[in-house]
Amino acid sequence: MGIDPGLAHTGWGVIEQRGPRLACVAYGCVATPASQPLAERLMKIHHQIGAVVERFRPECVGIETVWFGQNVTAAFATGQARGAALVACAEGGLAVGEYTPRQIKLAVVGEGSAEKEQVQYMVRHLLSLDRIPEPDHAADALAAAICYTTHENGRFA
Amino acid sequence: MGIDPGLAHTGWGVIEQRGPRLACVAYGCVATPASQPLAERLMKIHHQIGAVVERFRPECVGIETVWFGQNVTAAFATGQARGAALVACAEGGLAVGEYTPRQIKLAVVGEGSAEKEQVQYMVRHLLSLDRIPEPDHAADALAAAICYTTHENGRFA
Repeated sequence: MGIDPGLAHTGWGVIEQRGPRLACVAYGCVATPASQPLAERLMKIHHQIGAVVERFRPECVGIETVWFGQNVTAAFATGQARGAALVACAEGGLAVGEYTPRQIKLAVVGEGSAEKEQVQYMVRHLLSLDRIPEPDHAADALAAAICYTTHENGRFA
Repeated sequence: MGIDPGLAHTGWGVIEQRGPRLACVAYGCVATPASQPLAERLMKIHHQIGAVVERFRPECVGIETVWFGQNVTAAFATGQARGAALVACAEGGLAVGEYTPRQIKLAVVGEGSAEKEQVQYMVRHLLSLDRIPEPDHAADALAAAICYTTHENGRFA
């Protein structure tokens, strides 16, 4: 499983490793409106990620360690969403791998400085999908899941 | 209830309003060692704050909106702990009040620029405690709880 955490949008994706190949099982995005109270938004993220864990029973999860530059407010908001999502993962007994954006790009594209579009293209290619997963947050979550497999099992072809 | 969120230490305190007076019901601190995996630390915070909510059934919770200056790393870490704690509060149906350190000092001491020691002294005084609650995180959590009562019910004497 992969997660792209965010207070407004938390993307998730579940993949399966079949021998040397990867397949996409499901993906989606938990959206919470800014008009809702903070605690309810966090509970929704926790609840829906928990439902994904419950349904697909993944063994492990890759999650991005986001780089915020100097944006403390964004770091705090995303941190809260990430906390809510990780609690659901820990409750499901998942092993957690944390990766920098650079590590994810390196694992998916082969280049740490790859563009967003290259990552999306390779997510589609590696998972043999008909189209690029939408929204972006779901594609980013699948990229984090792919990154986990390369870190745990060596590079695949 | 009040919460002082932090990844290493999350303080909590439960108070009761009896007419114009406040009384301390219980307080404590959830400590998680840095040697534990992040997701397990967050699950422990979620679980233990959930247990406090379950046991004391508070109606509402005051929680500090921490100011990190330029420290993005601290904001991200504390954000995750805050997210884990707030999920437990939302699951218990608590109303959530978010306050700045200045608002809490103003509510407890009467001065927004009060020193930490003044806040601790007034927490002890307002709750008629024999001693200053320890650790600091628990005293800060009780201060956040007191702040909630002043914001919801006007100032008390």
